[in-house]
Amino acid sequence: MKILPKLESKWRRLKKRVTRPSLVRKLDLVHESARKKAFQESCDTYKNQIENEYEIRNNLPKLSHGDREAFLSDGSFHQAVGRVLLVAEFFAMMPVKGVTGKHPSDLSFSWRNIRTCFSLLFIASSLANFGLSLFKVLNNPISFNSIKPIIFRGSVLLVLIVSLNLARQWPQLMMYWHTVEKGLPQYKTQLSKWKMGHTISMVMLLGMMLSFAEHILSMVSAINYASFCNRTADPIQNYFLRTNDEIFYVASYTTALALWGKFQNVYSTFIWNYMDMFVMIVSIGLAAKFRQLNDDLRNFKGMNMSPTYWSERRIQYRNICILCDKMDDAISLITMVSFSNNLYFICVQLLRSLNTMPSVAHAVYFYFSLIFLIGRTLAVSLYSSSVHDESRLTLRYLRCVPKESWCPEVKRFTEEVISDEVTLSGMKFFHLTRKLVLSVAGTIVTYELVLIQFHEDNDLWDCDQSYYS
Amino acid sequence: MKILPKLESKWRRLKKRVTRPSLVRKLDLVHESARKKAFQESCDTYKNQIENEYEIRNNLPKLSHGDREAFLSDGSFHQAVGRVLLVAEFFAMMPVKGVTGKHPSDLSFSWRNIRTCFSLLFIASSLANFGLSLFKVLNNPISFNSIKPIIFRGSVLLVLIVSLNLARQWPQLMMYWHTVEKGLPQYKTQLSKWKMGHTISMVMLLGMMLSFAEHILSMVSAINYASFCNRTADPIQNYFLRTNDEIFYVASYTTALALWGKFQNVYSTFIWNYMDMFVMIVSIGLAAKFRQLNDDLRNFKGMNMSPTYWSERRIQYRNICILCDKMDDAISLITMVSFSNNLYFICVQLLRSLNTMPSVAHAVYFYFSLIFLIGRTLAVSLYSSSVHDESRLTLRYLRCVPKESWCPEVKRFTEEVISDEVTLSGMKFFHLTRKLVLSVAGTIVTYELVLIQFHEDNDLWDCDQSYYS
Amino acid sequence: MKILPKLESKWRRLKKRVTRPSLVRKLDLVHESARKKAFQESCDTYKNQIENEYEIRNNLPKLSHGDREAFLSDGSFHQAVGRVLLVAEFFAMMPVKGVTGKHPSDLSFSWRNIRTCFSLLFIASSLANFGLSLFKVLNNPISFNSIKPIIFRGSVLLVLIVSLNLARQWPQLMMYWHTVEKGLPQYKTQLSKWKMGHTISMVMLLGMMLSFAEHILSMVSAINYASFCNRTADPIQNYFLRTNDEIFYVASYTTALALWGKFQNVYSTFIWNYMDMFVMIVSIGLAAKFRQLNDDLRNFKGMNMSPTYWSERRIQYRNICILCDKMDDAISLITMVSFSNNLYFICVQLLRSLNTMPSVAHAVYFYFSLIFLIGRTLAVSLYSSSVHDESRLTLRYLRCVPKESWCPEVKRFTEEVISDEVTLSGMKFFHLTRKLVLSVAGTIVTYELVLIQFHEDNDLWDCDQSYYS
Amino acid sequence: MKILPKLESKWRRLKKRVTRPSLVRKLDLVHESARKKAFQESCDTYKNQIENEYEIRNNLPKLSHGDREAFLSDGSFHQAVGRVLLVAEFFAMMPVKGVTGKHPSDLSFSWRNIRTCFSLLFIASSLANFGLSLFKVLNNPISFNSIKPIIFRGSVLLVLIVSLNLARQWPQLMMYWHTVEKGLPQYKTQLSKWKMGHTISMVMLLGMMLSFAEHILSMVSAINYASFCNRTADPIQNYFLRTNDEIFYVASYTTALALWGKFQNVYSTFIWNYMDMFVMIVSIGLAAKFRQLNDDLRNFKGMNMSPTYWSERRIQYRNICILCDKMDDAISLITMVSFSNNLYFICVQLLRSLNTMPSVAHAVYFYFSLIFLIGRTLAVSLYSSSVHDESRLTLRYLRCVPKESWCPEVKRFTEEVISDEVTLSGMKFFHLTRKLVLSVAGTIVTYELVLIQFHEDNDLWDCDQSYYS
Repeated sequence: MKILPKLESKWRRLKKRVTRPSLVRKLDLVHESARKKAFQESCDTYKNQIENEYEIRNNLPKLSHGDREAFLSDGSFHQAVGRVLLVAEFFAMMPVKGVTGKHPSDLSFSWRNIRTCFSLLFIASSLANFGLSLFKVLNNPISFNSIKPIIFRGSVLLVLIVSLNLARQWPQLMMYWHTVEKGLPQYKTQLSKWKMGHTISMVMLLGMMLSFAEHILSMVSAINYASFCNRTADPIQNYFLRTNDEIFYVASYTTALALWGKFQNVYSTFIWNYMDMFVMIVSIGLAAKFRQLNDDLRNFKGMNMSPTYWSERRIQYRNICILCDKMDDAISLITMVSFSNNLYFICVQLLRSLNTMPSVAHAVYFYFSLIFLIGRTLAVSLYSSSVHDESRLTLRYLRCVPKESWCPEVKRFTEEVISDEVTLSGMKFFHLTRKLVLSVAGTIVTYELVLIQFHEDNDLWDCDQSYYS
Repeated sequence: MKILPKLESKWRRLKKRVTRPSLVRKLDLVHESARKKAFQESCDTYKNQIENEYEIRNNLPKLSHGDREAFLSDGSFHQAVGRVLLVAEFFAMMPVKGVTGKHPSDLSFSWRNIRTCFSLLFIASSLANFGLSLFKVLNNPISFNSIKPIIFRGSVLLVLIVSLNLARQWPQLMMYWHTVEKGLPQYKTQLSKWKMGHTISMVMLLGMMLSFAEHILSMVSAINYASFCNRTADPIQNYFLRTNDEIFYVASYTTALALWGKFQNVYSTFIWNYMDMFVMIVSIGLAAKFRQLNDDLRNFKGMNMSPTYWSERRIQYRNICILCDKMDDAISLITMVSFSNNLYFICVQLLRSLNTMPSVAHAVYFYFSLIFLIGRTLAVSLYSSSVHDESRLTLRYLRCVPKESWCPEVKRFTEEVISDEVTLSGMKFFHLTRKLVLSVAGTIVTYELVLIQFHEDNDLWDCDQSYYS
Repeated sequence: MKILPKLESKWRRLKKRVTRPSLVRKLDLVHESARKKAFQESCDTYKNQIENEYEIRNNLPKLSHGDREAFLSDGSFHQAVGRVLLVAEFFAMMPVKGVTGKHPSDLSFSWRNIRTCFSLLFIASSLANFGLSLFKVLNNPISFNSIKPIIFRGSVLLVLIVSLNLARQWPQLMMYWHTVEKGLPQYKTQLSKWKMGHTISMVMLLGMMLSFAEHILSMVSAINYASFCNRTADPIQNYFLRTNDEIFYVASYTTALALWGKFQNVYSTFIWNYMDMFVMIVSIGLAAKFRQLNDDLRNFKGMNMSPTYWSERRIQYRNICILCDKMDDAISLITMVSFSNNLYFICVQLLRSLNTMPSVAHAVYFYFSLIFLIGRTLAVSLYSSSVHDESRLTLRYLRCVPKESWCPEVKRFTEEVISDEVTLSGMKFFHLTRKLVLSVAGTIVTYELVLIQFHEDNDLWDCDQSYYS
Repeated sequence: MKILPKLESKWRRLKKRVTRPSLVRKLDLVHESARKKAFQESCDTYKNQIENEYEIRNNLPKLSHGDREAFLSDGSFHQAVGRVLLVAEFFAMMPVKGVTGKHPSDLSFSWRNIRTCFSLLFIASSLANFGLSLFKVLNNPISFNSIKPIIFRGSVLLVLIVSLNLARQWPQLMMYWHTVEKGLPQYKTQLSKWKMGHTISMVMLLGMMLSFAEHILSMVSAINYASFCNRTADPIQNYFLRTNDEIFYVASYTTALALWGKFQNVYSTFIWNYMDMFVMIVSIGLAAKFRQLNDDLRNFKGMNMSPTYWSERRIQYRNICILCDKMDDAISLITMVSFSNNLYFICVQLLRSLNTMPSVAHAVYFYFSLIFLIGRTLAVSLYSSSVHDESRLTLRYLRCVPKESWCPEVKRFTEEVISDEVTLSGMKFFHLTRKLVLSVAGTIVTYELVLIQFHEDNDLWDCDQSYYS
């Protein structure tokens, strides 16, 4: 009967072996002692970190209480994007109510809202303008260069309609975004909360300012040009006859029409710039969410975490992927219009760059506008490819999971990160990654070399040509 | 002896631990209580859903009993494609017997069938026509534009032969399709059964109507053209001399030959359009099968399903993949002919678009035909790439499998979906995905830019040129 | 003490559970009874099949004893490739001893062998010829077309040197091949043993015959040409002056030189054709080995096989992969020369096709040679891509492994097949797959369109041009 | 009571079964005896190997004690790259202190160091030179060919600035490199330690010598050229007026300026060559580290190793990957400048090759420089792609792990090797693999064919053109 207690103690050991190995594999014998220590240390580090975190979290509100005005941000995309959408609404896009509200549930869309009416009115006005442009272009010989006004006004019109449709989905999208954000690991500092919003504001501000500067330069250059090929005695009339030639191709000059044309031009130019910025801003938002997750993973890099930790992170990663998918479905038409537009305009501008400029004002405007165009295209490409880059970065932390805490959940997480291609796309026809930038650049150079073949110097800057964009 | 019962109870617990962990991993301690509740709830939801389903299934036949005539469809591809093949048979393609039969076992192919004889006769007739075209083209200087009639008649001839061969395999293919369909999760509603057939009918109807409209316009334009470069006094003779110049290049005009030529033209035009539509229809069918599977997966998304469930779904997915492979083997030559044809014709038409049109009738016909061609190519590309898109969609539901029911079967299913490339293909040289559309578009633009170089305006619309197609 | 026997019976059951689950997972409860039956059946089928196999194997030698002469093949690559190498040796390539021997161990290479001396002599002769060609080309204006003789003779020289080096490795390569073949599942029928050798013979025979026909046509055309631009009164002298212009550019005409030139031409033409055929033959051999493995997997498709079975198959697959790697290292320079040569020659020939032919003999020779060239290129591409296709086919059988016998070995096998890219390659710069064919075709068309730009009709068929090759 | 001892023996066996199967799966019954022997043998082989190794390690220091001077290398990258950096410092790049020190901890960067000051001074001087070049180019018509001086001097300037920044990070990078190297399996022989350093020295020496030879030839050719289009009576003045035309475009000739220009030219040429060599050297270093790991894996190929062995190798592999990443981040701008430069210069040189050379000296210089350029580009491409090739080679050894020692660690290792893309890159826009070489070659040919179109013979070698690079 003595062996029975012995048997029982064996029982206990056996049980441990039977239940444990599939969760945490035994440390190899050779390194066991060294590793155990390291494991213990990392556990301690982890505990301390967790405790520090809790303290920081608890203390932060108190500390930042004083300068709350400066650090209002709660790190949500809805709040960061509020002012951007407000500007868009001023330019007849995205007629959503409550964009500056505290909570995404304040957002709403209604067909009877004043914003929606303004937007619809402007769409109608743009449609008329587009029709006039189309009429003028079709009544003249068609070339790669001459269809520029149609491409310009057509894309603006398309983006307006898409943005109206997007406005209807916006409240739901923001609510989903809010849900995802709530589930993510919390920001550690107020600074990191403030960062995404700040980047978005800066991109918007810089974009607006450069776009405004370009418009001023375009006006100076157009006035210059108009006085050079003056048709009438009135310089202002000359200017409008030039910049809105599609209107005065069918109608005689009246001040009202000229003002309408001017208004249309200013708004179209803004919208044309805004679509690039919008793609950038959404990309910044999505990349920031992946970064938020990656920051948490970096904090626990190489430590022994429980399967629950990895399971949670995986679900959070999955949620951001789904969010990314939803946003892509919503804005991919805008992305495609933005990319093809930039591709076309760079080609046309580079083709024009071969001509001798009629004046210094033209040269300044032309080169400023060309550099702005290329820079903006590059910015859109890089910001949007950053979503993909950031989503792949997660892999780096998963590679450093120590073998002791390598579990099915980590494996599943790793496999998902490897096999998913998380990007914004242009209608799924192309995916926005860094490799795209190279192929776009290659395409531009190839097209350019082919276009140069047709090039004849005198037919692009003559007085009969449609001037303004 | 007392410890023995204790030992026994430990036995039981141990046994559970030994057998269970590899199938369903224990809930993590922290979230256990919360999760158990959620698990319970999802189980309840599942049970209710299953019960509801059963009720719906049992009730549906009764409910739809009255308007059975309107909802005849049983959701099978065989039934959906019946009328499409009937039309094809009228145009000397796919001579299979029993295409409108209730069950695929009614299908049969025989060399002695009247359909087969008609088909063989038409192949012989097309061969003669092709020979005449070849003779005319080789006796004139060859250019990118002048080989159009050979490409046109050659592809039609090739498709005819391939379709004859396909007809022989059709009964077996439909039987396999039937087997796969029977194994799939059942449609929930009569509406979803009816959907695939409806889409196929609509595509066919629209394609036929547009093709017919194009043919009428082509006739108007040809009559116009014939009267402009009239060779004889008889306008009808002029028309036939023009549209069948390959015949009257070797023979003198007789009404019989003219009628044969007309018949040949009408039939060739139909077949040329039909091959695109056939690729679309097969794609719709395959995509619908993947959608049927995905619909079932969506219903149970995020729930705890048994390994059997996943095993069944995986086998069903595998079966559709094999079906997709078999169909691809059977039709991939048609797919390749269809794609290269469209590519070539778009290039030629775009090249022609640079010329000034001789009349308004020409302009209308030309632009209608160009837009129809581009639209059709785009439709084929998008429908056929939808097979791939739909097959990848499965991954979305597999990503949401909760960690409790993550088992080797789900893992295997996931890995198979990731690594398989389920697409239709052009002889395996290219795979029909959305990315192909972009590269095809890029190729067209590049070719176009190169072709423009050779362009001389006057040699494409002159009276000596082969006109029709 | 009564419970102890009970305990013991539990022991047995427990033991089974503890040891089994990781190897063969329990059948799910719902389908258990049905599956067990199916499993039993498939086991029976398997047993019967195995028994049948044994019987077939035992009976086959007896049955085929009578017509042993007709079915000599043992299905080894060494035997299949024997006569091919014998022909090569006749043309001064691959100087290996014992190529027609029964066993690869009979193979040997020696620098003092008569074959090697002949080979070295011919290399020296070719070098002289290449030098003369180079001298002539550099003393004339260089164009895409005029460098043809250097490319031709340069590649031949390069292939000769590579083949000499390959000859040194050949005995080891064949020994390794023999080892791999011995490890593979045995062929079931004498027919399947005979198949690979037969395909290789047919490819070689067809290639040789077409190559011979082309050479005859080239002679007819050259005689025709020579008599047209006759420099001297002697037609034979004219012919040699024409076809070996690089020799008579520096030396005056002697019969000995003419005969040397003719000999050089005939041998160079053979070697130029042979390199394509050699790549094809190696591809056929490798693909056949994968097919041998796949045939075995197909026989047991969907059955419950033991992990040992899968482990063996995986190692066999691995061995063929390593073999493929070794062969690729050995012949990849030949592959690259072959591909770039074909690419260049097709471009040049297509460019020449734009010219009007001076005579019917020329036209016949030219179009025959162009079609032969394109056909050969396509054949090399398709045969070499078949290695990749066949290696991927294994996946199809692995997908059908039933869930009961899904074990770590099958998983590992599957993952290896998915992630390996088993192909022949051109110095690892490009891999020979079906997708390459499309991109090669695309490149040819693009180059062609660019080359057409430089095209001037009169400078390609004049009498001062280097004619032959 | 007799059954209890029996029970206990069963206990032992059970325990083995319970604990072992997840680590080392039982040998399959059929092959068990054969395998056990093989296993035993491989164990013996392993033991012997290990013992031999220890002996070799212990004996080596004694044996090589005599010729220690010849075999100083400890196989570290820091030591191997020491002299390379010393040369760079002489040419005003990479101003790091202690590059020839024994240990990377001796490295330091300081803004006040004499090297840094020299570097900053040279950057300022280069900036002035670049400004002058820019001024000259912008005041003349711009073409693909005329922007050569800006591209040349611009890249040199960019590389200088990047290398200054790199110098600041160099100490940390070398320390990290040192850590990684210490963790790697030790070199077996002194020869293998010495190898990497030797390759680096040879590449540097050959590169320097060829670059020097090219510069001498360029001077000979320029003197020749200057005397041909002599502007003044003084041949030395003529030479400087020619080679530094960008200086004397704005200033009149003085000896001081001429010497500054000459100094600038010599240094720029070196730096322009050095950036390629630097990319090569880093690639050699990284590839050598992967090779070091692979050599160890090869030694134990196909043997039964413990999971600890694999875990260690995986972590070592991971560390080299991280090192590769860090180095890529540090030098990827240099890589991109190097590649785009080579691409541009090859295109320009090939374009120039179409012209007739004014003299033999020109022809010799030109063709030497063209071949050097192409050779250098190819060398950079192949050396840098060898990092990727070497990192993939690890897979070969992982494929041969026998099934008995196939464990989760090997699986994880394999999956990481498969899914990681370990390469140097050009700002992540392109990755340096062998496939890139082909696409670069393709791009060069395509661009060349397009550039040929604009080609006019007389405008590239005239006396007014900027001559020197």
